[in-house]
Amino acid sequence: MVKSMEMTRASGFDENETRAVYRAIRERRDVRRGYLPQPMPEDVLYRLLEAAHNAPSVGLMQPWRFIVIKSLAVRQAVHQIFLDANKQALAGYDGEQQRTYAAIKLEGILEAPQNLCVVCDPESTQGHRLGRVTMPETALYSTVCAVQNLWLAARAEGIGVGWVSIVDPCLLRATLNIPQHITPVAYLCLGYVDQFATEPDLERAGWESRTPISSVVSFDSYNTQWKRQ
Amino acid sequence: MVKSMEMTRASGFDENETRAVYRAIRERRDVRRGYLPQPMPEDVLYRLLEAAHNAPSVGLMQPWRFIVIKSLAVRQAVHQIFLDANKQALAGYDGEQQRTYAAIKLEGILEAPQNLCVVCDPESTQGHRLGRVTMPETALYSTVCAVQNLWLAARAEGIGVGWVSIVDPCLLRATLNIPQHITPVAYLCLGYVDQFATEPDLERAGWESRTPISSVVSFDSYNTQWKRQ
Repeated sequence: MVKSMEMTRASGFDENETRAVYRAIRERRDVRRGYLPQPMPEDVLYRLLEAAHNAPSVGLMQPWRFIVIKSLAVRQAVHQIFLDANKQALAGYDGEQQRTYAAIKLEGILEAPQNLCVVCDPESTQGHRLGRVTMPETALYSTVCAVQNLWLAARAEGIGVGWVSIVDPCLLRATLNIPQHITPVAYLCLGYVDQFATEPDLERAGWESRTPISSVVSFDSYNTQWKRQ
Repeated sequence: MVKSMEMTRASGFDENETRAVYRAIRERRDVRRGYLPQPMPEDVLYRLLEAAHNAPSVGLMQPWRFIVIKSLAVRQAVHQIFLDANKQALAGYDGEQQRTYAAIKLEGILEAPQNLCVVCDPESTQGHRLGRVTMPETALYSTVCAVQNLWLAARAEGIGVGWVSIVDPCLLRATLNIPQHITPVAYLCLGYVDQFATEPDLERAGWESRTPISSVVSFDSYNTQWKRQ
């Protein structure tokens, strides 16, 4: 049964509102330091989770699940998982690059008063497989869209978010009682911050720089001139 | 060499600006119909691509590459890829569900005056593997964050975006000359629209409904009571 088609006027965003959206996108940062100790009020936390839950999803599958972590014991366990993985990662670099890597702060698991593990249930039958016959990975991609929604809403709220990917997903599963068929997608640190950096941490640390847009755009065909950088 | 740490004041967003960000998130839709024929001016297209290019990326890898497609011939070739994949998908349903599926419009490849294929170069050495030893899939996830940035900016601009996942990625590679080591992540249709639906298309069509936030949130541990829905 097709319901009546109610529409909002396009776009309905005035110049200031449009600018605010672009600003959140431009000023969002991957935050690993400077978290203030106060926990986020429940209503703010739920606003962020609602923003995530409003993400697009393949077949309206909504395969994301959110594990909010406030327990210090659990954060300590995850922090140990990070330390082990980071030691392994550090060993993969040499010389000057290893020294640079060692000096970069890569997580705020214990400083941030709440962490959030975002996982995906790729076997959920919600959405009845629509859109997933040819590209089953879109369940995971939907979950990532939820993360990015939350990240942008958090920026507007003055809440820093950092994504920690230097963790072994299997150990994360064991620590958070995540079943085998569920995929850990993102481990996030969240908390109020005093300020947001104007540039990405990794750029400031001299690890990598932002490339110009022209180096990643082509027309009607893949640009085979793009070098592997 | 660590540069001086310049910061912006947190959050710096007033109430109206914060509300605009949440509004873009809430009113974003997966658009498959109602595209207006006029092409997007170049400056608008580049604003959207810049929004995508501002996404977070693992190790500042920026692994996304954007193929803007305006050619009708290319769009017709991709449309045929969709038709073939959709026929196969339709055959997987029976009875009433098959009739519902057949009635849902799932793409706007030819109606939208521009399409955009977002791909990922997971072998790029940018970022020097930082953050990818334990979770190499984060290169793909960074690319999805770029898609979501573009989608939200487009909503504020009054531009509809639809993600078509009912396409065979191998055929897409052949049509767009995408090398084997590059992963097609998202095939998007973009164009101005007169209006945005207040509800997701799939909800209006009775295919699936949005679940309450309470069904996807737990604390400190995965909720093993969550049924497979």
